[in-house]
Amino acid sequence: MSATAAATATATHTPLPVLGRDVLVPLVTGGEVDYAALDYAASAPALQRVWDDIAAYAPYYGSVHRGAGYLSQLSTDLFENSRKEVAAFLGCRPDDQVVFTRATTDSLNLLAAALPQGTRVFVFETEHHASLLPWQQRDGIEVGYLSAPRSPRQAVETLERALAAWRADDQEADTGAGAALVCVTGASNVTGELWPVRELAEVAHAHGARIVLDAAQLAPHHPVDIAALDVDWVAFSGHKLYAPFGAGVLAGRADWLRAARPYLAGGGASRKVALSVREGVGGVEVEWHTTEARHEAGSPNVIGAYAIASACKALTEAGFESLVARERRLIAKVREGLAEVDEVRVLSLFGDDAPRVGVISFVVEGWNSSHFAAALSAEYGIGVRDGLFCAHPLVRTLLGGEPGEAGECGAPETAPGERSLNAIRVSFGAGTPDEHVERFVGAVKELVRDGAKWSYRTEDGRCVPDRG
Amino acid sequence: MSATAAATATATHTPLPVLGRDVLVPLVTGGEVDYAALDYAASAPALQRVWDDIAAYAPYYGSVHRGAGYLSQLSTDLFENSRKEVAAFLGCRPDDQVVFTRATTDSLNLLAAALPQGTRVFVFETEHHASLLPWQQRDGIEVGYLSAPRSPRQAVETLERALAAWRADDQEADTGAGAALVCVTGASNVTGELWPVRELAEVAHAHGARIVLDAAQLAPHHPVDIAALDVDWVAFSGHKLYAPFGAGVLAGRADWLRAARPYLAGGGASRKVALSVREGVGGVEVEWHTTEARHEAGSPNVIGAYAIASACKALTEAGFESLVARERRLIAKVREGLAEVDEVRVLSLFGDDAPRVGVISFVVEGWNSSHFAAALSAEYGIGVRDGLFCAHPLVRTLLGGEPGEAGECGAPETAPGERSLNAIRVSFGAGTPDEHVERFVGAVKELVRDGAKWSYRTEDGRCVPDRG
Repeated sequence: MSATAAATATATHTPLPVLGRDVLVPLVTGGEVDYAALDYAASAPALQRVWDDIAAYAPYYGSVHRGAGYLSQLSTDLFENSRKEVAAFLGCRPDDQVVFTRATTDSLNLLAAALPQGTRVFVFETEHHASLLPWQQRDGIEVGYLSAPRSPRQAVETLERALAAWRADDQEADTGAGAALVCVTGASNVTGELWPVRELAEVAHAHGARIVLDAAQLAPHHPVDIAALDVDWVAFSGHKLYAPFGAGVLAGRADWLRAARPYLAGGGASRKVALSVREGVGGVEVEWHTTEARHEAGSPNVIGAYAIASACKALTEAGFESLVARERRLIAKVREGLAEVDEVRVLSLFGDDAPRVGVISFVVEGWNSSHFAAALSAEYGIGVRDGLFCAHPLVRTLLGGEPGEAGECGAPETAPGERSLNAIRVSFGAGTPDEHVERFVGAVKELVRDGAKWSYRTEDGRCVPDRG
Repeated sequence: MSATAAATATATHTPLPVLGRDVLVPLVTGGEVDYAALDYAASAPALQRVWDDIAAYAPYYGSVHRGAGYLSQLSTDLFENSRKEVAAFLGCRPDDQVVFTRATTDSLNLLAAALPQGTRVFVFETEHHASLLPWQQRDGIEVGYLSAPRSPRQAVETLERALAAWRADDQEADTGAGAALVCVTGASNVTGELWPVRELAEVAHAHGARIVLDAAQLAPHHPVDIAALDVDWVAFSGHKLYAPFGAGVLAGRADWLRAARPYLAGGGASRKVALSVREGVGGVEVEWHTTEARHEAGSPNVIGAYAIASACKALTEAGFESLVARERRLIAKVREGLAEVDEVRVLSLFGDDAPRVGVISFVVEGWNSSHFAAALSAEYGIGVRDGLFCAHPLVRTLLGGEPGEAGECGAPETAPGERSLNAIRVSFGAGTPDEHVERFVGAVKELVRDGAKWSYRTEDGRCVPDRG
């Protein structure tokens, strides 16, 4: 084996160090075990490197943009450099803006608020709530919901048809070329399946529409290159990218952002504020910034932004090639393990061959998903998620539930033992050791074969071990 | 001296441990000095206790509300307990909600978005941008700007007159009792002066209006009791309360918050989402939460919220009585020191006798404020702020500048040596040692007497030491 091959093999086999790897949790059956965090799709643990960077910076924290002191200047540089790091990580075009937000949901709400009046938004009904709901909430925005495609090709064709019809209507009504936006998630937070972002972007642009990529589940697993994918905006969250310090990102085209009403009104976003007298009544005249600051009023979350930049750097340095290779191996282990259990049905929109990230949802015949997830936690120290994953319409479609119905976003309140219309999701990433997914597969097999060792009851909408 | 008196005396003389106390910064004149952070009003350093709590929790971080694993349940409990800690800190009424936001600016923007259509907002033109600007940005909200009062009593009288006139107009127009909101800052971020919150609340309520207290500058220095002050809402920021992790708070009456359109649309805020067919077009039907979750869509900033709760606890345990006593002593030192320099003019709206927190702004005759602040940093290692403090109308009023004009929010671009219409602000708090304010007073005297030891130039809108 050459030195390079050996180095690659080592890199491929070693998870990145994350916080919490040594945390022991109690088992209901006695003893303790190190916690297997397999809910990365909701929130990933912090990379050790991110934490170390934050800890090293924290004593130097100071007010940004506005202070004359040494630490203020250092903090301002660190904050603005974080923006540049993120731009580099995303392969941003020179004119793109990188706005720091709270998280993906906030990023997409910001974009929704920044759309020109009358923009038509196209979104697949399979999107999760963060990318499904912000548009309809805005006055003056029309939303076209596209039906669930059963293959990436069908997704592209569906969008093509919808955009063509919209253009035709538009011309017929002679209303001129209104703005249109397509919003698509790069990797599903339910099935982990990859969407054909590049192809959807091509179709969107061919029809004069723009496209925003929800990369919340994609960015932690795959390189996202805004220019190569030719998308107009990208949104993602720090807490899914190993940087859980309350920040997220919206990056992309500056024009609509510059023209929009500021997302938040306040200091930092305002360049000049003056009292004015209009029609005899006092008022204020505001000149707003046209940089990213326009949408970042208030003191920015410096530590959150720096944490994201640190994670971007750490992932880039680790190399996505080896991260992807390693994750593929873990995905294969989980899928092969689950395939050996007849009672397990993995949820999929695009079929077995679709490329995917480390996010896999499934149901177990004869089991309430909440009950199953509770047993994985209490008896094996494994943390997964049960429910509808804030993607109710998609999960209902995948489970074959009646459209028009919807379940709880959190834990369902059905009694343990009953079947429910919820699912179980296992998800993992750069910090996951092989042992965690191996323990998970073993536990699924054991639970299905032998049943739970403990009894459970519903308490406050959660399925918990019965300790009474 | 009794044991209690001795303990109080000690507590009174000891700053609370904060991060960054040992940070050394270089002086342009050679050597290093420990940094004197005197820009608390912009962002305060983290309490050591807050950092320790965060560091102890970080390995246990997990997805909240939605995960079945042990760490998810632990994190959910920690997050929801943080809400309760904040409620206790603010003396909330049983029905009040505590919504976690990004910061005060975000909190007030959230409240602005939650106002019933047609609400009339009353705000003094002396408010800083965070409390001045959010209201005018909302469609369907009318804003009445109240002129700068020159005493707390005048503030109460001005509000009384404005509300009485509004009620009279309202009755004359026979439009029924529309909603009204008064927004007031508890302690000015420019003068540090306290506003008569309790009295303003009484006037507001007497006229059927509600009141929101911007406690960004008040909460770090004084106890804020929402029930005792009888205000309807309180907003504050973590980063000014020694917890700079990207979170803030809006706490208070639930009714308008429950009835309002969700501040952000997405998962977490939505209880049920279903596909629907309306008029032949697909759509989504959403049932939104009516708890705090309604306005907290997306994964919450668990660490940020916990940091605030930790700070609330630390301040409560330290005891505001001794914190206030200690700060009063520091304020006296600064004010007495500045009073000895003829060239210094301290900015004040309410006069010398007004009670205040540790926030003091001033100008120095013959000095450009940016130049002065740059010299304090480069030659003494002291971090203050220069500018208009995101309160342009107020600072212009205090400086006697022409109304209708406004300066830069950040560093002004006037040449060093010229006078400018900006000011210098020194601010401090629970972590400030006596030496910092003593060094500051000494530095002001020396700079005024001897001039700067170094030459400075403007670079990218900042006044910096000339190293060429």
